[in-house]
Amino acid sequence: MKQKVSIVKIGGNLIENETILDEFISNFAELEGPKVLIHGGGKLATQLAGKLSIPTQMIEGRRITDAETLKVIIMAYGGLASKTIVAKLQGKNCNAIGLSGADLNLIRSVKRPVKEHDFGFVGDVEEVNTGALTLLLENDITPVCCAITHNKNGQLFNTNADTIASEIARALSNHYETHLYYCFEKRGVLRDLKDEDSVIEQINAASYKQLLGEGIIADGMLPKLHNCFNALKENVSYVYIGSIDMISNRQTKKTTITL
Amino acid sequence: MKQKVSIVKIGGNLIENETILDEFISNFAELEGPKVLIHGGGKLATQLAGKLSIPTQMIEGRRITDAETLKVIIMAYGGLASKTIVAKLQGKNCNAIGLSGADLNLIRSVKRPVKEHDFGFVGDVEEVNTGALTLLLENDITPVCCAITHNKNGQLFNTNADTIASEIARALSNHYETHLYYCFEKRGVLRDLKDEDSVIEQINAASYKQLLGEGIIADGMLPKLHNCFNALKENVSYVYIGSIDMISNRQTKKTTITL
Repeated sequence: MKQKVSIVKIGGNLIENETILDEFISNFAELEGPKVLIHGGGKLATQLAGKLSIPTQMIEGRRITDAETLKVIIMAYGGLASKTIVAKLQGKNCNAIGLSGADLNLIRSVKRPVKEHDFGFVGDVEEVNTGALTLLLENDITPVCCAITHNKNGQLFNTNADTIASEIARALSNHYETHLYYCFEKRGVLRDLKDEDSVIEQINAASYKQLLGEGIIADGMLPKLHNCFNALKENVSYVYIGSIDMISNRQTKKTTITL
Repeated sequence: MKQKVSIVKIGGNLIENETILDEFISNFAELEGPKVLIHGGGKLATQLAGKLSIPTQMIEGRRITDAETLKVIIMAYGGLASKTIVAKLQGKNCNAIGLSGADLNLIRSVKRPVKEHDFGFVGDVEEVNTGALTLLLENDITPVCCAITHNKNGQLFNTNADTIASEIARALSNHYETHLYYCFEKRGVLRDLKDEDSVIEQINAASYKQLLGEGIIADGMLPKLHNCFNALKENVSYVYIGSIDMISNRQTKKTTITL
């Protein structure tokens, strides 16, 4: 029987609030067995770019990463967010290590091809270094991964954190029983955005199509669920969407995604 | 016979210049055997603090690290400098990993006690995690360490990069024959600051006293040499001061420090 590994992604909006971050850190540190944390840091980068008077350019809700914006992202995600989380986890006796995709050649990507738009220094994941992750996990080390990848030729790239979580879970699925948790502001996928109690507790491929048709799954939830199903198709064992409470032992509603 | 390990510290002034950094990266990547890189990033932090309108407060030539300045240092050293160096090393097939003292609990420190002055979030090194460093080195991984430490209780600290290099060399001296290189702008300790060719090729404890008396060693060179002698007293095998050329196979003058 394969050993269980927990891959937990926490959204950038959550880590900005120190109270919520500290609560999450406690929950995560107590999680038993090998585990990986993937964090965003979206607003942190936007705030820093603002203070530095670097304009945030968006196309269809997606950030364009020019050279100056990339530096901001490296500083905010790879520096401040990463080291703050690692120091807090070490304070809870969780032997964490902060990593970008360049560290240990963990995640190699290619620049997103220019089609209709040029998103700049954005990388599409090509390969996860499973050996490096396994070496760390087998030594009771907890990787804390930020949403930065590289091309193995000196260039760093901004990459979607949900995708990184899904790719890491896929890569580990040959060696482990993988449990992928997407933590965000809500308690799960909601049937009615105005009703926090309307969590849809199970979504499978069939009900997903139906929810899409009804317009219940839309906007930011679309790429998230796309990543969930991709992960399940590539042998990730379990995928969950919910609040930071779902990784603690407290009973809480969450959305479980299955094929 | 113990295996040789090279511990190389590169100053912040050098890594700002991309041409010099790239030359250093090539030299460092070609260095044979296990190795550790320690980098500063001084001006990068000062520039970023300036752009963010965070005043740089200095006492007797030393930076005061208030909460906002600490964030800047984490972003500049732990983020931009670290990840840029790691990505470049990976591009040269050197399996680098960027670390602060919090990562793997690598360097635990305590806040510098307030005596005459309060330097703020500045940490004095208490313990280097030799086991963690050895695990990496034995797996052909090259640690790239920035000048940030932690108190194992969630707090990060700014720490002098020369000191970190010296402490890491000391910690590794039980397992390895340690060669500690301090790379800076000059070709070594100069007898005459205006004459780049006046490198003092050997300094030992006796000649050090004499050079101090003559006023030839002064200012920034004082703490650097203090670190060198401390390292040698704690079983570091060799300590060198010189330019980035000294770690390549090219013949070049450098200063060798002995007891």
